[in-house]
Amino acid sequence: MAGETVITVIGNLVDDPELRYTPSGAAVAKFRIASTPRTFDRESNQWRDGEALFLTCSVWRQYAENVAESLSRGTRVIVQGKLKQRTFDTREGEKRTVYELDVEEVGPALKFATAKVNKSSGGAGGGGRSFGGGGNAGGSAPDDPWASAAPAGAGGSAPGQGFDEDPPF
Amino acid sequence: MAGETVITVIGNLVDDPELRYTPSGAAVAKFRIASTPRTFDRESNQWRDGEALFLTCSVWRQYAENVAESLSRGTRVIVQGKLKQRTFDTREGEKRTVYELDVEEVGPALKFATAKVNKSSGGAGGGGRSFGGGGNAGGSAPDDPWASAAPAGAGGSAPGQGFDEDPPF
Amino acid sequence: MAGETVITVIGNLVDDPELRYTPSGAAVAKFRIASTPRTFDRESNQWRDGEALFLTCSVWRQYAENVAESLSRGTRVIVQGKLKQRTFDTREGEKRTVYELDVEEVGPALKFATAKVNKSSGGAGGGGRSFGGGGNAGGSAPDDPWASAAPAGAGGSAPGQGFDEDPPF
Amino acid sequence: MAGETVITVIGNLVDDPELRYTPSGAAVAKFRIASTPRTFDRESNQWRDGEALFLTCSVWRQYAENVAESLSRGTRVIVQGKLKQRTFDTREGEKRTVYELDVEEVGPALKFATAKVNKSSGGAGGGGRSFGGGGNAGGSAPDDPWASAAPAGAGGSAPGQGFDEDPPF
Repeated sequence: MAGETVITVIGNLVDDPELRYTPSGAAVAKFRIASTPRTFDRESNQWRDGEALFLTCSVWRQYAENVAESLSRGTRVIVQGKLKQRTFDTREGEKRTVYELDVEEVGPALKFATAKVNKSSGGAGGGGRSFGGGGNAGGSAPDDPWASAAPAGAGGSAPGQGFDEDPPF
Repeated sequence: MAGETVITVIGNLVDDPELRYTPSGAAVAKFRIASTPRTFDRESNQWRDGEALFLTCSVWRQYAENVAESLSRGTRVIVQGKLKQRTFDTREGEKRTVYELDVEEVGPALKFATAKVNKSSGGAGGGGRSFGGGGNAGGSAPDDPWASAAPAGAGGSAPGQGFDEDPPF
Repeated sequence: MAGETVITVIGNLVDDPELRYTPSGAAVAKFRIASTPRTFDRESNQWRDGEALFLTCSVWRQYAENVAESLSRGTRVIVQGKLKQRTFDTREGEKRTVYELDVEEVGPALKFATAKVNKSSGGAGGGGRSFGGGGNAGGSAPDDPWASAAPAGAGGSAPGQGFDEDPPF
Repeated sequence: MAGETVITVIGNLVDDPELRYTPSGAAVAKFRIASTPRTFDRESNQWRDGEALFLTCSVWRQYAENVAESLSRGTRVIVQGKLKQRTFDTREGEKRTVYELDVEEVGPALKFATAKVNKSSGGAGGGGRSFGGGGNAGGSAPDDPWASAAPAGAGGSAPGQGFDEDPPF
């Protein structure tokens, strides 16, 4: 791929990650983070919170399972991923746009926490092995397990419409 | 400020920048960019366009005037800025969220173009001078000229007025 | 601060982090990471390692203690920080330049690992409290604990003493 | 490629860009930028310059020609590229490391300047055309014109040694 907008965000998980599996058996985890900037108010000599930035993040395969096992509501994380935009039609026929982060790397920030790190075993059947060696992690289009889930999920939950904001969730 | 999500985006201007002035006389320019990723299709041995990412960018003061004078529809640009989220209520009482880029730096990308660069004179009254020395360019809250415009345009839930996605424009 | 070059690097720790304390009692941890890019070789249909990028990272106070407790040689991490350059004279009078990362955030990447995250207690004397509320983490100049160490170790051109690449270590 | 450390730097050109051609006819431009952070000193109520970060940047093909034609000493630029490290042995047999930026995109920042942008013609023989459609700009390894130049340049300027800090320049 080329021309992707890769960004890094520091934020806190708003909820526990949700882990699902596509029909073909691939794991995918979604989690939402809030990143709150701070402004220093020279008059009061204090930091004040600004408006938070919320982003929904998705991560795939073994990485998804590691995320679901390690992170939870409130965890401060560092996330690097591709900023993507998805446009869809609502039930009422309106066009909507959501921004999402297609996660490349994520982990707990150690600013206010410690972490006990364990190498993951690689999942059942050694699936993690081939994943481990790959440089194309992160759900690139051709082998995107989400693709096979979309028709099932979108159609399933909303017959006659074909598209939900977040099909498998 | 601290904790801002600063990102860099490469994209093309969808339209000419719009230049406006707040009641207090500060210039502000808005422009929209589209950033289109590409995937290499190994079967066809060709690059294919992915879904574009659109972002509305705003830039202030002398920088805004420089942008309005230099960039136009189609220009490929490099933009660095703070990714921000703004939530508002529609006329129908629905909550909507838009993502915007509060520009810190922007310029034409020279991949497919050349540019003749001229130092800006700094605007009338030498306003550019003091700006030139400042490290807090980019519309930080305290002296944000937009603030004075907000009451007029940004009264999101004001009855009978509704909300414009981009108030002062 | 303004105009800093903030970057994000994904890499593996080359060694265990080293934790030290400045004379004034502030903790500082240093660790070195290697980030290895990969190129896909279409002929052999395989990924090949490129030349690694090595960077020395430093992190301060409670964050330093959390890092020393959590990360170790081989851990894959995500690091965000300010890219800095430091120039010094060698014993032989030659000028040398090193690039370092002044860490703002760091944590283990969960690509091949899980992590059990624990909120840090904040250290002895509640030092973590005031740190916790601060937005200026990361060793900003005015209250930089390193400063008190500098005279001892960092007197780059001090006759008869020379210069250590990493003074307090 | 995967796992590259892509960073964005705002800085000023220290000198005019140098444009060269490899034996195979590919253009390559090098330029050096200085990025100076600023700290706000609350006591004096003034911004003070910090230590500058210097980086050597290289850019290829049509992009190189556009850079050489458009940028000059002092121009403030936005540069996005891959941070790379190159290790070599000096004449004295010492190991040295330099950090460089393999430019993906660059352009003049409009903070203190305006720019008249012209689409580039694409060079002789329409070479720019196919380049224009490519997503692999920026000197990726397989078709790197530098490669063919290295033996000629390095050997030429330092027989019996094989490597110079910046061979073709």
